Amino acid sequence: MSDSVKYLLPEDRIPRAWYNIAADLPQPLPPPLHPGTGKPIGPDDLSPLFPMALIAQEVSTEREVEIPGPVRDVYKLWRPAPLYRARRLEQALDTPARIFYKYEGVSPPGSHKPNTAVAQAFYNREAGVRKLSTETGAGQWGSSLAFAGAFFGIEVKVYMVRVSYQQKPYRRVLMETYGATCIPSPSNETDAGRAILAQDPDSPGSLGIAISEAVEVAAKNADTNYSLGSVLSHVLLHQTVIGIEALEQMEMAGHWPDVVIGCAGGGSNFSGLAFPFIGKKLREKKDVRVIAAEPAACPSLTRGRYAYDFGDTGHLTPLVKMHTLGSTFIPPAFHAGGLRYHGMAPMVSHLKELGLIEACAVKQNPCFEAGVAFARAEGIVPAPESTHAVRVAIDEALAAKEEGKARNILFNLSGHGHFDMQAYADYFSGKLEDRDYDEAALQAALGALPKVAA
Amino acid sequence: MSDSVKYLLPEDRIPRAWYNIAADLPQPLPPPLHPGTGKPIGPDDLSPLFPMALIAQEVSTEREVEIPGPVRDVYKLWRPAPLYRARRLEQALDTPARIFYKYEGVSPPGSHKPNTAVAQAFYNREAGVRKLSTETGAGQWGSSLAFAGAFFGIEVKVYMVRVSYQQKPYRRVLMETYGATCIPSPSNETDAGRAILAQDPDSPGSLGIAISEAVEVAAKNADTNYSLGSVLSHVLLHQTVIGIEALEQMEMAGHWPDVVIGCAGGGSNFSGLAFPFIGKKLREKKDVRVIAAEPAACPSLTRGRYAYDFGDTGHLTPLVKMHTLGSTFIPPAFHAGGLRYHGMAPMVSHLKELGLIEACAVKQNPCFEAGVAFARAEGIVPAPESTHAVRVAIDEALAAKEEGKARNILFNLSGHGHFDMQAYADYFSGKLEDRDYDEAALQAALGALPKVAA
Repeated sequence: MSDSVKYLLPEDRIPRAWYNIAADLPQPLPPPLHPGTGKPIGPDDLSPLFPMALIAQEVSTEREVEIPGPVRDVYKLWRPAPLYRARRLEQALDTPARIFYKYEGVSPPGSHKPNTAVAQAFYNREAGVRKLSTETGAGQWGSSLAFAGAFFGIEVKVYMVRVSYQQKPYRRVLMETYGATCIPSPSNETDAGRAILAQDPDSPGSLGIAISEAVEVAAKNADTNYSLGSVLSHVLLHQTVIGIEALEQMEMAGHWPDVVIGCAGGGSNFSGLAFPFIGKKLREKKDVRVIAAEPAACPSLTRGRYAYDFGDTGHLTPLVKMHTLGSTFIPPAFHAGGLRYHGMAPMVSHLKELGLIEACAVKQNPCFEAGVAFARAEGIVPAPESTHAVRVAIDEALAAKEEGKARNILFNLSGHGHFDMQAYADYFSGKLEDRDYDEAALQAALGALPKVAA
Repeated sequence: MSDSVKYLLPEDRIPRAWYNIAADLPQPLPPPLHPGTGKPIGPDDLSPLFPMALIAQEVSTEREVEIPGPVRDVYKLWRPAPLYRARRLEQALDTPARIFYKYEGVSPPGSHKPNTAVAQAFYNREAGVRKLSTETGAGQWGSSLAFAGAFFGIEVKVYMVRVSYQQKPYRRVLMETYGATCIPSPSNETDAGRAILAQDPDSPGSLGIAISEAVEVAAKNADTNYSLGSVLSHVLLHQTVIGIEALEQMEMAGHWPDVVIGCAGGGSNFSGLAFPFIGKKLREKKDVRVIAAEPAACPSLTRGRYAYDFGDTGHLTPLVKMHTLGSTFIPPAFHAGGLRYHGMAPMVSHLKELGLIEACAVKQNPCFEAGVAFARAEGIVPAPESTHAVRVAIDEALAAKEEGKARNILFNLSGHGHFDMQAYADYFSGKLEDRDYDEAALQAALGALPKVAA
């Protein structure tokens, strides 16, 4: 049996600039709007929450954005991340396809999230900010910002969705180990939290509620900024180190990918791998299919409406144009907590509208089945979120087998599952349900979308 | 602030041979004895349990033992492992010492254990063996053998100490994800297990009991071999890839270590890092202090007797000469489950007697304190076992500060703590006790040592 192959870049090949896909778009991204005026927002509207450097990145159309030296220095702890050819998985599937994966679980917190957490902590520190507030679902983002905060001397306060806070205590302990404070949301610390608790003292919380709390704290406290782990364009920008490295590693491997796949909740790991490949397609007419793999229980790209909507439940954020299930939509519980968000990144949504990416929705039992097959062949246990990408990659490899044709498949293994073994235990014991979203609730949430002249 | 530095070797620098310290010993290792005859055992005594290739390695005095190609191929998934200079920790301690650490948590199961698990699975597979039995405490070893079994098509059955099986379900789920079977020990499947359960139906189990069960299954079933994750010389041999890489990385860094530190339970990660450096000392008179950091609650090297003893509770193993607390000694509960073993590897014990290594015992609260300081400075959360090495490294760095003299400290960060966050939670909540072992129980266990003409 021929073994799997690792393609590793030397440290000096850590990218020196992030790739900004806005430079190559055939049509510009629709701007965020002020919910009161319905007019495009300006930098001043965002300055209570973000440092100017990040606001500038949010609207930049420069193709390359230099990565500051101190950010690259921290990246060096785990980057360049390896890219593997999964030969053993290919053999297990008996497919003529070549399967490659980029592995982002090598970061100390175990996922791709530190790529932007470190950058955001750096720019805030440069701007003199010493406190950041944020939200987290399953805890990958919160633990990554806690990690970055420790490196740049920033106090991090994380509002963690209450049900995750109670059911998944280990990523909370990880945040505390890095020195951050973690608070179950909804909390009594904010107006947004108190409003929810007044209606439902036992509210399990949601990502949308936790965002409202974190934004409120930053808006009301001059010494505190807000930090978001996905969705916004500057976050996706920081993640492009993944794809820039992967481009070079695929060249080492001597193959161009016919298909590029990432799981998509808010869209950051998907964008990080895919954007540099889409850029090649836009600039050099390279042919590549790009697939966003989303959960069937929270299918914003495949079932949502492309419309202006709020990013949070409390309606404190600007309106952004995105594929959305509605900010009042509460997805059913499932284990890939990092994918339980009502909207999709505006840039990813825009690319979908432009026909530059595809999307598909997958159920959780087939995802865990794929995750187990991957672990037994390649040795790495994927995070529940990442199993969505594994599932679609395996389906592409099986389709290639069916057709009797080779194809090159590249997917992003965005994190390891070491903190998510309860999900695997539930899968093995047959306890996992393939719950669909509630169609009536979706229609109600879509009916409640804000009215904006599009 | 100057940042920490990673020293990474290219893939072709994965060692091609393990280093066998037996070749350089001033006095040979005392042989294992047959408990019935009191005579040295021969290969035939071990052949029901191990393939001949491993039996030969157990007694080899060749300095270099070639690493088979298929083993190196699997090592390539994560090796060469990085070595770091912990500059940020140095700055946090304000020490003139240089602190280096080798990081073995990059393996898919998260510790150094796969270095030998992969080799053992390979040699068993070569010998036509399709089933392996083993034991595990906290689960690092069991999950590593499960991982290796998946790669070489071997069924793995793991007897897991019952209290860990119940309290630490996640490494058990990891084993199952890799396709292994995990059974709480003592079990009803073996005579050894049934004998314990007859006396105490609620027995929490111990590593010594679990070893008896796994050995019994291998001895009674012709199609099953036994696999051990530490203690034996061939296991320590396989771990020397750690130190061989570290020798080259310290050369890259331009420094020779004045002190080399590893945590020691059975002794395998300690040996893996230390033996190649001790070899340099023996052959080239290079000066180096080598320190084994053991838990105060199970202090075989510092409080045990150097004597012939059984490796297991059920007295199924040969007698080996080692520092032992007595095979009937049950250490108090503490979180570094991988260090809860009554004996120390015979080779490590022998080196201690020869004055080539030192040992010190540390309590668990100061270890977790060190682990948290390390995580906040360097970003990686150490396994509870590894925090023992971190503690002693920090103490050495603080001693250097006290003396106002630089020194180069190298320690082994044998694994990450992602599966052990409950231990950190207990530490933060003040629930961890610094329990000492029971002196009367120790004296009773030492009094029950087998009588052998030494």
